[in-house]
Amino acid sequence: MNEHTKPRLEVCLSPALLHLFDVKNSIVVIIDVLRATSTICTALYNGAAKVIPVATVEECVSIGKQLNAITAGERDGKIADGLLHGNSPFEYPREFIGGNVLVLTTTNGTKLLHMAKDAIQIVTGSFPNISSVCEYLISQGQNVILGCAAWKDRVNMEDTLFAGAVVSRIKAHFDVNCDSALAAETLYHSAKEDLFSFMKQASHFQRLAKYGLEEDIKYCLTMDGANVLPILRNGELVVEK
Amino acid sequence: MNEHTKPRLEVCLSPALLHLFDVKNSIVVIIDVLRATSTICTALYNGAAKVIPVATVEECVSIGKQLNAITAGERDGKIADGLLHGNSPFEYPREFIGGNVLVLTTTNGTKLLHMAKDAIQIVTGSFPNISSVCEYLISQGQNVILGCAAWKDRVNMEDTLFAGAVVSRIKAHFDVNCDSALAAETLYHSAKEDLFSFMKQASHFQRLAKYGLEEDIKYCLTMDGANVLPILRNGELVVEK
Repeated sequence: MNEHTKPRLEVCLSPALLHLFDVKNSIVVIIDVLRATSTICTALYNGAAKVIPVATVEECVSIGKQLNAITAGERDGKIADGLLHGNSPFEYPREFIGGNVLVLTTTNGTKLLHMAKDAIQIVTGSFPNISSVCEYLISQGQNVILGCAAWKDRVNMEDTLFAGAVVSRIKAHFDVNCDSALAAETLYHSAKEDLFSFMKQASHFQRLAKYGLEEDIKYCLTMDGANVLPILRNGELVVEK
Repeated sequence: MNEHTKPRLEVCLSPALLHLFDVKNSIVVIIDVLRATSTICTALYNGAAKVIPVATVEECVSIGKQLNAITAGERDGKIADGLLHGNSPFEYPREFIGGNVLVLTTTNGTKLLHMAKDAIQIVTGSFPNISSVCEYLISQGQNVILGCAAWKDRVNMEDTLFAGAVVSRIKAHFDVNCDSALAAETLYHSAKEDLFSFMKQASHFQRLAKYGLEEDIKYCLTMDGANVLPILRNGELVVEK
């Protein structure tokens, strides 16, 4: 394949930069490693019928009632008032989530998802489903934007590292002319021998560790523990058979 | 000094993210490595009386006439219509610029400079004056934002690398709770053995190399070739004695 016929691969480090990218002509991968997109693929891997991402606790409660679904979401590290479950992937084992609908409200990830609504396609990515994401992106032959959910628009380490891991795996299939992609990939190579130790320096690690979530973080940095591809169809994340 | 009494050190990777930072209570370092801030310190090092940064070619022409100054600036890699000089640091040797005023229009750097106008103080940073910048920041004991000018708001490699180099030198004096700072520093450590080769992968390198500017790039990646501190006073960059 000629260099100039390859699709583009780019990394957007924060939702506040998404307007710089050609979302409409790209597949967008939503990345919210700690913990929304890790939990989404885990719930689907464990048999959830679908995951409905919503922006607010109110929507979460109201859609949950309509669909008799499991409602989940946190604010400031605690289960939000009116919801029953939190953001930890460990809350969604097969015996609990299998066959059920999960309505999940997260701040950073859901915001980015709505911002990317004009994309060719939206999927969610995290270390637990990295192989599915990479295979899908290669198979589609479309431009790709790896969209980091970040933390209140601030660039964060974990989403950047995941974007870098994807770049490192799939770049041969794409035209990569994007310094953020190069930076993310270089960062990933510096950190990959021990992602967990590397992440101990990061701001989000320190926030979550305060809540006793080191096991969550370890899981969220481990590859292919829940290797399915959540794809957005009519506002719902599903796994297509 | 107690950890919690140290001032903050943060990195802002793009002007489009500057609103997330507390500019008013910080010193802001404007970073536009290729080539505005490298050229600014070079002109001042070589004896320019001052450098006046302006946003548009029109302002550049008009202020240049008023002050009988040297006007400089490029658009799309060529000297802009109406101006006499370009952005290369090699255009400003002592015998030419000594004692003169340089009015310089650049897009990315000047934009960020205006956005940061409420800062405690604005200085400009680049590899040719890295030691002056670091000594100054340590001496002031104030919060610091390393502000990358980026490329049309897109995160770029060279400004990120410089920010990382500064973080690596001065972090012991600051409280660094900023993933962008950690990312930039890690990136710098990956690249520092041969910044020039590393930069060959970057998008701006490819843009400038097309114009035959590899020597400019080498100079702009070399430390302390023009080691003075440009500091903004009443809209003008000067070196204080």
